[in-house]
Amino acid sequence: MMTISEIKTLLEGFFQPVELVGDGDTVITGPAKIEEAGAGQVSFVANEKYYRFLDEARASLLIVHSDAPVGDGAGSRSFLKVKDPYTAFVFVLEKFAGTRQITAPGIAASASVASSARLGRNVSIGQHAVIGERCTIGDDTVIGQNTVLMHDVAIGSNCVIFPLVACYDGTIIGDRVIVHSGTVIGADGFGFAPQQDGSYIKIPQMGNVQIEDNVEIGANTTIDRATMGTTLVCRGAKIDNLVQIAHNCRIGEDTVIASQAGISGSVRIGRQCLIGGQAGFAGHLEIADKTSVAAKAGISKSFSQPGQAIRGVPAQPMRDQLRQEALIRGLGDMKAKLEALEAQLKALQERNA
Amino acid sequence: MMTISEIKTLLEGFFQPVELVGDGDTVITGPAKIEEAGAGQVSFVANEKYYRFLDEARASLLIVHSDAPVGDGAGSRSFLKVKDPYTAFVFVLEKFAGTRQITAPGIAASASVASSARLGRNVSIGQHAVIGERCTIGDDTVIGQNTVLMHDVAIGSNCVIFPLVACYDGTIIGDRVIVHSGTVIGADGFGFAPQQDGSYIKIPQMGNVQIEDNVEIGANTTIDRATMGTTLVCRGAKIDNLVQIAHNCRIGEDTVIASQAGISGSVRIGRQCLIGGQAGFAGHLEIADKTSVAAKAGISKSFSQPGQAIRGVPAQPMRDQLRQEALIRGLGDMKAKLEALEAQLKALQERNA
Amino acid sequence: MMTISEIKTLLEGFFQPVELVGDGDTVITGPAKIEEAGAGQVSFVANEKYYRFLDEARASLLIVHSDAPVGDGAGSRSFLKVKDPYTAFVFVLEKFAGTRQITAPGIAASASVASSARLGRNVSIGQHAVIGERCTIGDDTVIGQNTVLMHDVAIGSNCVIFPLVACYDGTIIGDRVIVHSGTVIGADGFGFAPQQDGSYIKIPQMGNVQIEDNVEIGANTTIDRATMGTTLVCRGAKIDNLVQIAHNCRIGEDTVIASQAGISGSVRIGRQCLIGGQAGFAGHLEIADKTSVAAKAGISKSFSQPGQAIRGVPAQPMRDQLRQEALIRGLGDMKAKLEALEAQLKALQERNA
Repeated sequence: MMTISEIKTLLEGFFQPVELVGDGDTVITGPAKIEEAGAGQVSFVANEKYYRFLDEARASLLIVHSDAPVGDGAGSRSFLKVKDPYTAFVFVLEKFAGTRQITAPGIAASASVASSARLGRNVSIGQHAVIGERCTIGDDTVIGQNTVLMHDVAIGSNCVIFPLVACYDGTIIGDRVIVHSGTVIGADGFGFAPQQDGSYIKIPQMGNVQIEDNVEIGANTTIDRATMGTTLVCRGAKIDNLVQIAHNCRIGEDTVIASQAGISGSVRIGRQCLIGGQAGFAGHLEIADKTSVAAKAGISKSFSQPGQAIRGVPAQPMRDQLRQEALIRGLGDMKAKLEALEAQLKALQERNA
Repeated sequence: MMTISEIKTLLEGFFQPVELVGDGDTVITGPAKIEEAGAGQVSFVANEKYYRFLDEARASLLIVHSDAPVGDGAGSRSFLKVKDPYTAFVFVLEKFAGTRQITAPGIAASASVASSARLGRNVSIGQHAVIGERCTIGDDTVIGQNTVLMHDVAIGSNCVIFPLVACYDGTIIGDRVIVHSGTVIGADGFGFAPQQDGSYIKIPQMGNVQIEDNVEIGANTTIDRATMGTTLVCRGAKIDNLVQIAHNCRIGEDTVIASQAGISGSVRIGRQCLIGGQAGFAGHLEIADKTSVAAKAGISKSFSQPGQAIRGVPAQPMRDQLRQEALIRGLGDMKAKLEALEAQLKALQERNA
Repeated sequence: MMTISEIKTLLEGFFQPVELVGDGDTVITGPAKIEEAGAGQVSFVANEKYYRFLDEARASLLIVHSDAPVGDGAGSRSFLKVKDPYTAFVFVLEKFAGTRQITAPGIAASASVASSARLGRNVSIGQHAVIGERCTIGDDTVIGQNTVLMHDVAIGSNCVIFPLVACYDGTIIGDRVIVHSGTVIGADGFGFAPQQDGSYIKIPQMGNVQIEDNVEIGANTTIDRATMGTTLVCRGAKIDNLVQIAHNCRIGEDTVIASQAGISGSVRIGRQCLIGGQAGFAGHLEIADKTSVAAKAGISKSFSQPGQAIRGVPAQPMRDQLRQEALIRGLGDMKAKLEALEAQLKALQERNA
């Protein structure tokens, strides 16, 4: 529980100025979605199209944009005006969320930690987790229950590896990385040499995976090790559930990949890209920085110009794809016109005969 | 092993009437697919288009529709005639399947059960499973080997949670729920606040997941916790393998979702919908009851009229989509006609010149 | 480390002839990708379009095709000329990769092995793995940490089952099979009998899964057990990550399935097929041998002619689909031509009026 004035002080640590409209002494018990918030709760309005909630909402506190038309806060509600109400609300959420406990502090008695592993200070390891030979784990990192680190895995500080994650040998993970349950990092790349009789010989997958700082990876995602070298997920990238990242890919800084997208081998995706759900990439492509890929797109060639939006199967620049989709929707009309023309022409021919 | 008369008695517990054609004393050793069934086995024919099997099949017993033209059962085969032969066969399968053992009865010595957890009667917990602080597990529920329940997970009675499932803190599961291996329930929703420098701040995911009674969830599926509030899977829903259900979704009662479908954040799907494999939904949509979504559809807007069938990318009503697909298939013809028209018009113009 | 002459001898065990151009005494420390290889490293050039690397590469040894124009090897680089340089390089990779250790040799003290299980010679079982009643494991097979074999699972010899794999009861796995982490073999098929009130009754899934020799299965893939009978993955098939193979499927010998493809129930795929990523198959189809399915294809009918390439949604033979895609790209032109025709015809009509 915090008073509104305490929340104001909290936000002033991040934003200047924070303007209070209304009563600062009201006690706030927690956050809620705008349409569900009631007395004692805090919510936010970041977007003009939700300004109707400035009147309707029953939250005791709304965090709004500095320009929001909130009057003088008369009545039971108060407002905190900031330049980025969405991010401000995130800070409030963090405050109310408190520290999350994945597993009890310390090393569970049932965990298997190799004698050659090196653990930092304040590391927590859950029950039945396995920490392989020569692994290193940084300060304040949490390893969830039944998670397996094979040998020679290096994990930085302040990471949270949730239960039931598999990190294959040689995986390198930076600081402040979050990996959700069921994710598999470093499994073999999918590489086979075809033989004349139609069978395949497995190509040894000798590389590894490196995950840089501040990356978050969702549940049941797979990131394969490189055949040789490193599959690299760069600093700040955010990867959703059930995503496939194949061997030797490079995912740029602060790139966001939505659920069920699939990135084939040796694809290089730039910085600050947005990859929609269920999008798929053919192998060996290069995607420039700040490319935005629509959900379900099928990318079959490189896009080297930064900042493009692409869409469709095969993917093309958004404008071209939308024009094409409009033309397809207009096909019935085109067919009708064509038939009308045929009839008119026939009439004209007969008249001219 | 059961005699045909015993199977008749079993079915009479569910259907009236059950008519026997042929000999009731034959012993049936088990069920089989119609094309593989032999002497001593039972199979079924539910659909008129398989009526040829009424003659061909070598099963000793066929369960058929009351109207099936089965004659007097002369020869080695018998028939049981019921109004719903498919469901009747399911009851026979259940009888032959017997009780399935996931793990030995009782609490495995190697399981980690928090002292604050509360277990009902006749609970089984497999080896190396982890039951976190303050979890509750109802009567007759089975928790598989190496499954992890984080803290404050509540599971009802008569559930089967297969091995290697992860339930995050706060997950609520009803009665008679089945969850297959590798599924992750309650991982963080995919929510990040973009910052001016292109990086992202994680939005704390403070909600949970609730799974109501009689739900079955396949293997390696992910159901994310709500940012605030609850991601809800309603009573009787059936969810296949590798499905993504994002934060704050609501999946209606008795809705069926096939493998690899992806439901983005805050989508509400109605009751008794059928969602095809690899279908994908954009965020914040509402889908009415009894909507049928074709495999691979890409749903980019809400469909509010109940009972529609939709298909395509972007999805549209089935009839419109099929017409559009037919128009696309006819494009070669259209092009040929257009070129013929051009030639004819040119000839006419020259004649008129 | 090996000298070039030693590598020549190694390859002569597989290929005849192997021709050395240059110095055989140079010591090679390891393999590398052609663009990254430096002094002391070996790489390969298999494809004419990379022949520029014959001059540019800084590797000490290049494995090339017998016909490659490599001159006399003057300078610091040597060449080994063989008929299949790609496969030759794979053998060199294997030599340098050495034996991979998944878990320590022997049975980990924390593993749970049922007293009724039968283990071959030289089996390794990782920490907290669970081997259920009546399982059998062949010689030299490795079971990873926290992997669960339910009861009556049979695994052959020389297999590697990585950590955190789930094999349901009755699963049968041949020799030299590799299964990566997070994969679930034998979970229940997705089968429910609809009832008049809109709810469903679960159809007991009484069959199993059989994986034949030399199959490799990626991470977080799901292969469901048959309703009755067996879901079969035939000898030598290679299956990538996050693939769905539903109940009662049959995947032919040496067929390759890329990531996130989905195969619905009772589909039969022939031998030596190539299935692209994110492709999806409707149920009960038959796909002939050596069919090549493009990424993202949606296969809605059987393709019974062997050796076809198919593509698109719904999938059709490659040539038809490419023609259709070209027609769609030409729609803007068609529309312009149609409008020009309309104008010309109108002019002609007015002139004739």
